[in-house]
Amino acid sequence: MLEAIFAPQSVAVLGASPEPARLGHRVLKNIIDHGYQGRIYPIHPRATEVLGLRAYPSVLDVPDPIDLAVIVIPPQHVNAAVDECGRKGIRGLVVITAGFKEVGGAGRELERELLATVRRYGMRMIGPNSLGIIDTISQLNASFANAMPLPGNIALMSQSGAICTAILDWSYQQGIGFSRFVSLGNKADVDEVALLEAWNRDEHSKVILAYLEAIDDGPGFIRVAREVTKCTPVVAIKSGTTAAGTRAASSHTGSLAGSETAYEAAFAQSGILRARTMNELFDLALVFAYQPMIRGNRVAIVTNAGGPGIIATDAVERSGLAMAEFTPETIRRLQEKLPPNANFFNPIDVIGDATPDRYAWAIEAALADPNVDGLIVLFTPQAVSDPLVTARLIADLTKQSNKPVVTSFMGGASLVEAVRALNEAHIPNYLFPERAVQSLAAMYRQSLWQQRPAPTYRHFDVDRDRVAQLFAEVRAAGRVELGEVEAREVMEAYGMRLPKSRLAHTPEEAVAIANEFGYPVVMKISSPDILHKSDIGGVRVGLSDATAVRDAFELIEYRARKYVPSARIWGILVQEMVRKGREVLVGVSRDPQFGPLIAVGMGGIYVEVLKDVAFRLAPLSVEEVREQIRSIRAYPLLRGVRGEPPADIAAIEETVLRVSQLVTDFPEIVEMDINPLVVHHEGEGAIVLDARIILN
Amino acid sequence: MLEAIFAPQSVAVLGASPEPARLGHRVLKNIIDHGYQGRIYPIHPRATEVLGLRAYPSVLDVPDPIDLAVIVIPPQHVNAAVDECGRKGIRGLVVITAGFKEVGGAGRELERELLATVRRYGMRMIGPNSLGIIDTISQLNASFANAMPLPGNIALMSQSGAICTAILDWSYQQGIGFSRFVSLGNKADVDEVALLEAWNRDEHSKVILAYLEAIDDGPGFIRVAREVTKCTPVVAIKSGTTAAGTRAASSHTGSLAGSETAYEAAFAQSGILRARTMNELFDLALVFAYQPMIRGNRVAIVTNAGGPGIIATDAVERSGLAMAEFTPETIRRLQEKLPPNANFFNPIDVIGDATPDRYAWAIEAALADPNVDGLIVLFTPQAVSDPLVTARLIADLTKQSNKPVVTSFMGGASLVEAVRALNEAHIPNYLFPERAVQSLAAMYRQSLWQQRPAPTYRHFDVDRDRVAQLFAEVRAAGRVELGEVEAREVMEAYGMRLPKSRLAHTPEEAVAIANEFGYPVVMKISSPDILHKSDIGGVRVGLSDATAVRDAFELIEYRARKYVPSARIWGILVQEMVRKGREVLVGVSRDPQFGPLIAVGMGGIYVEVLKDVAFRLAPLSVEEVREQIRSIRAYPLLRGVRGEPPADIAAIEETVLRVSQLVTDFPEIVEMDINPLVVHHEGEGAIVLDARIILN
Repeated sequence: MLEAIFAPQSVAVLGASPEPARLGHRVLKNIIDHGYQGRIYPIHPRATEVLGLRAYPSVLDVPDPIDLAVIVIPPQHVNAAVDECGRKGIRGLVVITAGFKEVGGAGRELERELLATVRRYGMRMIGPNSLGIIDTISQLNASFANAMPLPGNIALMSQSGAICTAILDWSYQQGIGFSRFVSLGNKADVDEVALLEAWNRDEHSKVILAYLEAIDDGPGFIRVAREVTKCTPVVAIKSGTTAAGTRAASSHTGSLAGSETAYEAAFAQSGILRARTMNELFDLALVFAYQPMIRGNRVAIVTNAGGPGIIATDAVERSGLAMAEFTPETIRRLQEKLPPNANFFNPIDVIGDATPDRYAWAIEAALADPNVDGLIVLFTPQAVSDPLVTARLIADLTKQSNKPVVTSFMGGASLVEAVRALNEAHIPNYLFPERAVQSLAAMYRQSLWQQRPAPTYRHFDVDRDRVAQLFAEVRAAGRVELGEVEAREVMEAYGMRLPKSRLAHTPEEAVAIANEFGYPVVMKISSPDILHKSDIGGVRVGLSDATAVRDAFELIEYRARKYVPSARIWGILVQEMVRKGREVLVGVSRDPQFGPLIAVGMGGIYVEVLKDVAFRLAPLSVEEVREQIRSIRAYPLLRGVRGEPPADIAAIEETVLRVSQLVTDFPEIVEMDINPLVVHHEGEGAIVLDARIILN
Repeated sequence: MLEAIFAPQSVAVLGASPEPARLGHRVLKNIIDHGYQGRIYPIHPRATEVLGLRAYPSVLDVPDPIDLAVIVIPPQHVNAAVDECGRKGIRGLVVITAGFKEVGGAGRELERELLATVRRYGMRMIGPNSLGIIDTISQLNASFANAMPLPGNIALMSQSGAICTAILDWSYQQGIGFSRFVSLGNKADVDEVALLEAWNRDEHSKVILAYLEAIDDGPGFIRVAREVTKCTPVVAIKSGTTAAGTRAASSHTGSLAGSETAYEAAFAQSGILRARTMNELFDLALVFAYQPMIRGNRVAIVTNAGGPGIIATDAVERSGLAMAEFTPETIRRLQEKLPPNANFFNPIDVIGDATPDRYAWAIEAALADPNVDGLIVLFTPQAVSDPLVTARLIADLTKQSNKPVVTSFMGGASLVEAVRALNEAHIPNYLFPERAVQSLAAMYRQSLWQQRPAPTYRHFDVDRDRVAQLFAEVRAAGRVELGEVEAREVMEAYGMRLPKSRLAHTPEEAVAIANEFGYPVVMKISSPDILHKSDIGGVRVGLSDATAVRDAFELIEYRARKYVPSARIWGILVQEMVRKGREVLVGVSRDPQFGPLIAVGMGGIYVEVLKDVAFRLAPLSVEEVREQIRSIRAYPLLRGVRGEPPADIAAIEETVLRVSQLVTDFPEIVEMDINPLVVHHEGEGAIVLDARIILN
């Protein structure tokens, strides 16, 4: 997929000027200079030859077929030129020209027209406003970057051109190579989702890095990312999340950034490793690009000094990794070869006067130990130590290992050569031990993700038509919020349990209903115009006999008429009084990019004061709901504390899954709250006590 | 203080061998080569001259006075040599020799003897097992490091020699300089506390860095650090776990206080900035060493690309800093000089084609704005940008500014020269924007700390003698845990409010007491042998008349005799039933290094399940208690939610302060819990409902 862009047989450069100062000239020169092997056609209105290649006035004048057109002409001419590309049968476009959506106004209109043309011919387009693309596999540098990245197995996409430039510049210095390097620009056509899809199972890329400012197609992103991350780790940085950052993002790309919560949930649910800083992005890139996947969480540390060993051990214990416990065989091997004052347990301390061979013994023993899943080698410059020889030796010893090895050579001036040797040998090296540990920890998280079984989805048999009809009626009445009786009907149609309840229009009717349900009962005003019933005294609980029911009916009716004289009163709801249980909130909001975001938390102050809520995006799998509920801090309260029996967690899970199905079936639900869901003891179910639904 | 070590007039090197391969030779050579201006005396049993200097067999043979002795002789000879140093009147020692406490056994004994000798003569000693010390002010390199650090204004102490070596090596590469550089070794005499004290108000050090593995004298550390940090920022990395982690924890508070809790509290209460990683340690060092202190939290950002601007803006909002809002004057100035498609608001985007002069306009305007407290300049390599010229210009423009300026030049190969220029001009530069932001944020935290008024301590008039007597009685009885009645007396002696309560020995007495207190009452078994009273049904609440009291007395007595036949029963406590309020836990555990650690949290599940507890070390100031209570997540519950009036927070504060006084007066209290403290509405006080005290 997208072969026309990344592996074209022939490339035309529109705007390939003979003027060396022009951007189009630079782009053409990059394609020629960096070893592209296909045919290259400069396109220029007047030139007949550019950089030694025959030039044509239009792609239509080129006698041979063209796969890819790189466009570097003024914005007002782009659409016409792209139309010619379409007529020529060109399949791929890289539009470097700027002046489209990002400048607003007329630019936005230009971009719409351009996209329409692209779609009409079924072409695929990177950009506009892209810095270009670089593919080291097909040796194509279709960009105005000053140089070609080193070849490697890291694929990178960025929504910021400047980040591309900075990364490229930095990567030379570090000796880090890329397979593909894409500046997404305004991503009118090819966006992060299309690229992820194109790079799925790409044999040339061991890790995908993404710098993202906004994701437009949230559900598409999750679907594709979930697939890709099963094979290839994706490490992403997402900027523009906080309030002020979002403002900057809007003025920058003209796109709307999603809320932080939705991104957190999306990344977690699709197996994307989120880097918090640019540093972390590359720390993780290195370990995935260079080292085999870790298979467990047990790491060994080899060091020539105590202090760094402690730092690394602390970091291991904080990170979700564990310090490996060596087999007796390993300890015997270490004791045989290392001096008696060395430490033979983990971390292995080969002592400050360690020569390279002592490192060798320790590394060999650690890697051979079946209790070790990964290795961290620490090195500090000491009087007799030889950093370069030690680095080379680490490279040799670990080449054949199927366990990941990372290093932290701590220092500067005296380690320059050693660090270069490590880079060349593809051993990820970090200035400080903590970063080495964090990188292995991320690798472990990725391995857990890859080992997860396929998600299970439950489909419930529900009365979808009834809900559709109800929503139509609400809309027909000019409302967006459902009344309580309507919300109840929706819940019932989706199989949720509710307290027995019926509308009474007279005190006598109320008493009859209460007699049927059994006492005590609850009574509530039912009116589309009274949302906060308690505020006007419109709710009475614990009514334990006919007299109380009759009194309550008249009191509630009186108050409703007094405090909201204009209210339409449908009657008074008589409801079974639900016995106490643990109260849970299940809420839904709709994220503009990612769709329905389902919140679960313990009711009352846990949600209101402690903000103890876990979010996931719908549709939810059975496993995701399980995780979601267990990630609430107050989860132990559901398991039962102080001898209290556990709550019916299965019933909460089922309720959340039914809500997930409901909001997936009806995208018009923009907000919904079940608050509270009263959860009884294990096996005794959960009852929706109150629900609100708001349509768009 | 410690002048004999850091600024000696003359230095003797014991073990200054003529053999170039010997450590003592290297140390002597370092002192000579790196420009030390005082007199130098090699001491060697046989040599008469070393490295061109006259050598002596013993310090006692040197005709002139000696300030400092650097000792590099075998461990078994050190004590005798130090004794000679004492007799010679030498005031300072740096013992590089290893083989003391760190090897255990006989080494431990040797160190004890050595320390005794040092103390006998009133000398001060660094080491043993130190890498040595370096002081760039007096140009003294009394170490076997391979080179001298660059001069600068960062003071560094490290409990790990290897970390010293690594830092030194790295600092050359980065062009970072130090004022003083100390390897603490086994810190038998001079430890981190003594060094902090020596470096207080040191005009040559703008920041102190500390790599710590353990602090022995916790209270001393806090006292000195609190003083030092008022003038000089101290950035510390703390590695390794404390003994506290392994200590048996029988009470709530004990099990909640992890090993790290005491260090966290100690750093927070003494104004030490804790770096989580080595990276962060140096990120912070640079900004303090190179830039003026920030006076507020409002930062401006200048960038030539949107993406990095977003990253930085996000980081600002997450960090406790705020994006500055420019004055109209600033915006006018920017609009006048920058192209129309630039962003004139914060972050100022000078656009990818920015030449250095555009950066200059933006930087000048931002620094001149009264709403700006600090500036971050971001730079990405672009076609027309000139990194070196831009760097020099930033250096020129900001030289006179009294606002801190940091940069992030993002990239590598093309920025080498520019980054060097920034280093030389003392502009802290960070590879990625987040780190620049975090450094300014740390500076802001430090400025807040420095602006804090002096802490207020309250002293309560209490009956200390009564408590001392009670504790003596408990010990005399061979117990360590106080009974309920005893714990009550302690609380009362320290002025805490308790429910009215009296011990009854017969049902009739119980009824008489209840009649006096008024109904309802609570009754509890009182026995030193029954700690968990509820478990055996030994507590009855809500007893509302004489019959209920009589029944309860007999039932409780029966159960106690039945379930714990061996228990000594003191009687049955009749207690006023306290009306409901918000329940708070006040607990104390004792950290082996730092002493009493006071925990405060909301009672019940907030502590047990949600672990929502804030810790501080006693003695507590009024301000610290205020902060402590406000840092609990559930604090809003004390302020009152859902229309509930606020709780009497002042009463909680006073209770905590009284507890602080109690545990400071009585170090023998190893654990104590007030659980619950029942807190009534504002102005209505708080009552200790139950208390446990355990002595050592």
